[in-house]
Amino acid sequence: MNRMMANHSNPLVAGTVHFVGAGPGDPELLTVKAYRLLRRADVILHDDLVSPEIVSLVGPHAEVLNVGKRCGEKKITQAEINSRMIEAARRRFEVIRLKSGDPGIFGRLAEEIEALEAAGIPFEVVPGITAGIAAASALGASLTDRRKSSRVVIVSGQHAADADARNSRADWSSLASDDTTFIVYMPGRELARLQRELLDAGLAPDFPAVLVSRVSSPRQCQWPTTVADLHKIPPLEAPTILLLGRSILRAANSAASGLLSAIVEDSDCSRLAILA
Amino acid sequence: MNRMMANHSNPLVAGTVHFVGAGPGDPELLTVKAYRLLRRADVILHDDLVSPEIVSLVGPHAEVLNVGKRCGEKKITQAEINSRMIEAARRRFEVIRLKSGDPGIFGRLAEEIEALEAAGIPFEVVPGITAGIAAASALGASLTDRRKSSRVVIVSGQHAADADARNSRADWSSLASDDTTFIVYMPGRELARLQRELLDAGLAPDFPAVLVSRVSSPRQCQWPTTVADLHKIPPLEAPTILLLGRSILRAANSAASGLLSAIVEDSDCSRLAILA
Repeated sequence: MNRMMANHSNPLVAGTVHFVGAGPGDPELLTVKAYRLLRRADVILHDDLVSPEIVSLVGPHAEVLNVGKRCGEKKITQAEINSRMIEAARRRFEVIRLKSGDPGIFGRLAEEIEALEAAGIPFEVVPGITAGIAAASALGASLTDRRKSSRVVIVSGQHAADADARNSRADWSSLASDDTTFIVYMPGRELARLQRELLDAGLAPDFPAVLVSRVSSPRQCQWPTTVADLHKIPPLEAPTILLLGRSILRAANSAASGLLSAIVEDSDCSRLAILA
Repeated sequence: MNRMMANHSNPLVAGTVHFVGAGPGDPELLTVKAYRLLRRADVILHDDLVSPEIVSLVGPHAEVLNVGKRCGEKKITQAEINSRMIEAARRRFEVIRLKSGDPGIFGRLAEEIEALEAAGIPFEVVPGITAGIAAASALGASLTDRRKSSRVVIVSGQHAADADARNSRADWSSLASDDTTFIVYMPGRELARLQRELLDAGLAPDFPAVLVSRVSSPRQCQWPTTVADLHKIPPLEAPTILLLGRSILRAANSAASGLLSAIVEDSDCSRLAILA
């Protein structure tokens, strides 16, 4: 029932592009609408991070193209992705642009929408479960808690660790407060700088943090720690997401113990968890 | 594939409580997992805001209880909700605690989890599409845009308009920055104070804002404006959500024009949109 944005275009002469959130990886966390659209679409352009289990849900005659940062050996540019969407829609195909998590959170959705609008192609956006929210759920944690966490701040680690260190530090000093839950997308493997910035910004050394790897996949694992020890987190397999906040403390610890008893696969990640 | 948190309990002697996100209202925005659980659960305890279309998806033999702020004429306390969950699980029923949007965002999930843990009842959390993310999708907007919106801040209007005006103003002055997208849950109908606080905090008068009513329902409508004119927004039907950010400008305007051409119902909301 999301409204279709049919800007400057005649739906009779072009197919629609559906920007669809694939969620964090588990096909059960697709929306009913995403599932239905995937089954019937003609052309699916998906990011690298979309799980193979989800890509395998497409109909038997669908054309599937990985337009992630690496497609085979060659990189596809943003302009090429835009052209392919437009070209497929002009052939009157139903097109899905499938993005991991939610399309509107760190997904270049704005740029792709502008390209479609300029070309007169109708589109809609179907939201997905974003990785940060899925991570909290998977830990059995609430992102807010009226007793201790009253707001949620979503940032990208690529931005947080921006080349301009001064700007980056200023960002954190304005954001850092004890009653905030932070979700850091793409935190990277170098967390020593983030640790310094958060401490400089005034977060308590014991402020809880947990790095979650491959959220919602069968090989999900997490590393609960504190801001003071962020730099000691071992490298976990990408994609990872970092949660920080008073409301996630208890859950992060319970989930970690729960995980150890549930380990059935001999993944790098489970070995790391056992060593902890 | 979310992991079950079976704390201090024997799954053989108690049913599981599934905290399930119902999403913003459209049944198509349920996750596949939520849909499947709803079909088979024995007992469903749901909030007032969960849409009737979603409640009607439960199996024929399910016991359904509205535990929202008003249940008939009488209010159910948080302690009573906790007791009912625990009691149903002890009768070995599969229990769904159904919350609108995502359970972990302004939903008292933390308190309910603590009650279950204290009682030794196993539980899991199934994420849902939260209203703020659904609102952006419904407008055809991206919450982030690497050219102008690098982070997302989720707050509750109840908190923003806290009795302690000084604290509230301090909150905004630290958060307000031009490259942030704000999602205000429960913004209320009195937006004059929020307007003053945001301007005092340094947001530009032309900073884009849009109030969205009944996100994802057939009667959704939205009111695009700016921070300077926040106080002029007419009262739209609850639930509403307020988005503010540079990345939502164009979409909010396009979506509003699209809506006018698509109006088929004579709701208060559509009349307001036509008058604008």
